[in-house]
Amino acid sequence: MDPARENRVREIFNRANFIRDLGIELVRVDDGICETTLIPSERHRQQHGLIHAGVLATMADHTAGGAAGSILDVRGDVLSIEFKINFLRPAIADRLRCQAQVLRGGKTIIVAESEVFAEKDGQEKLVSKATVTLAVREI
Amino acid sequence: MDPARENRVREIFNRANFIRDLGIELVRVDDGICETTLIPSERHRQQHGLIHAGVLATMADHTAGGAAGSILDVRGDVLSIEFKINFLRPAIADRLRCQAQVLRGGKTIIVAESEVFAEKDGQEKLVSKATVTLAVREI
Amino acid sequence: MDPARENRVREIFNRANFIRDLGIELVRVDDGICETTLIPSERHRQQHGLIHAGVLATMADHTAGGAAGSILDVRGDVLSIEFKINFLRPAIADRLRCQAQVLRGGKTIIVAESEVFAEKDGQEKLVSKATVTLAVREI
Amino acid sequence: MDPARENRVREIFNRANFIRDLGIELVRVDDGICETTLIPSERHRQQHGLIHAGVLATMADHTAGGAAGSILDVRGDVLSIEFKINFLRPAIADRLRCQAQVLRGGKTIIVAESEVFAEKDGQEKLVSKATVTLAVREI
Repeated sequence: MDPARENRVREIFNRANFIRDLGIELVRVDDGICETTLIPSERHRQQHGLIHAGVLATMADHTAGGAAGSILDVRGDVLSIEFKINFLRPAIADRLRCQAQVLRGGKTIIVAESEVFAEKDGQEKLVSKATVTLAVREI
Repeated sequence: MDPARENRVREIFNRANFIRDLGIELVRVDDGICETTLIPSERHRQQHGLIHAGVLATMADHTAGGAAGSILDVRGDVLSIEFKINFLRPAIADRLRCQAQVLRGGKTIIVAESEVFAEKDGQEKLVSKATVTLAVREI
Repeated sequence: MDPARENRVREIFNRANFIRDLGIELVRVDDGICETTLIPSERHRQQHGLIHAGVLATMADHTAGGAAGSILDVRGDVLSIEFKINFLRPAIADRLRCQAQVLRGGKTIIVAESEVFAEKDGQEKLVSKATVTLAVREI
Repeated sequence: MDPARENRVREIFNRANFIRDLGIELVRVDDGICETTLIPSERHRQQHGLIHAGVLATMADHTAGGAAGSILDVRGDVLSIEFKINFLRPAIADRLRCQAQVLRGGKTIIVAESEVFAEKDGQEKLVSKATVTLAVREI
């Protein structure tokens, strides 16, 4: 892919304190595609010991932003307008992996989908799926 | 309100590591209502310096869970099935306040709404609104 | 309200074949607010005799469009980007009433909420709630 | 697939007045999958001549219900709790085709996705994508 675009996606991750703070790492970026991982720990849990819905939502939203950022002109930028996420299975994982892809890339609106998989004992299961609508704005 | 129910909502917050880690605090609970606050810091930011969508989403989801928990029988429990959140304004704040209320409390499904307000220079603005669907399960 | 804007909202209803075909009627429009009604009949039903989710969704979407249209400059126009709707109770009604209001009116994006009430035996119950995101475009 | 289940899905379509009234036809059902078509006419349009969002939403919702119904025990039944739909492109079509598949089939909750394609001049484009959450209930 275009190195300037790839670089922009890397910046979307490097400059986002909350993403670094949670431990979400960018592992792959391609045209319209972004992939991240997270090794969950005690601090990511909710009251029943599962990974908190907010962790899954943050990962889904930001990875969708990475996918959207990968198709933009270098002077553009993206911002989430809204998202919807379904929690399909209890999230217990040694590792979370999120894969996002652009569903529709318009001039002013980009729609992307994110799937979050929980890897446990060598098996991966889909635990969440999100649809994210982003606005394109010029910097 | 019933002290056993109030206590259950407090536990939903006390036992959730991710909520304590982010600094989200329960400030009010009543029948079908829950209110929380968060003092945002550098670590909650995204790449443009705004509060990350994932922080707003976590707050909206968990506060909705608190509102849902407030109307349940003591032996029940709630789990988010899905939520949708709109980001209405850029989130810059000295303090975030989230207010959630139950829209419909069924036997197996509860639907709640959460509004997140950004307080800045003494003024409050609505920055996010979410609808959360929760499943009731027996413990 | 401004007569030109009111007129535009009326056109949004008069020119929409599907809305007239279903029998959805505009009953009130004000700045950021729109209200419609529908007398349901046999043809609006799903397989269990309830009013079909698609009827409620159509009403919620179009009435939100009316509310959004009420705050626009006369040369602008709105188009739904996405919506989310919760079905809170089984919809059995002598009359449906939908009330929409603008939650946030930006220059390029408007977010509105719609509530659909079922009137039955003189009592009104909230049966659906939707959040609708609309794009503003110039004609 | 099991003929009793297939028959149940057919009934979900045959007995739904609103679906027959709109002209939505079931063309395929398999385990966790359902496909429908609609030939749009003047009556399905909104104010700009496009197919109304409510038509796309109805098709997406009902086809998701068909997919969910295909994996249920014969004594069970499904009801939409909520859905979210994105409108990705202006819907102009000689024929609409909707394909739904179950994303997660739980005992009490089923989540399905629906894609609506517009066929125009022999070309198919994705115009809408929806996520539908359904409750399973015993009859």
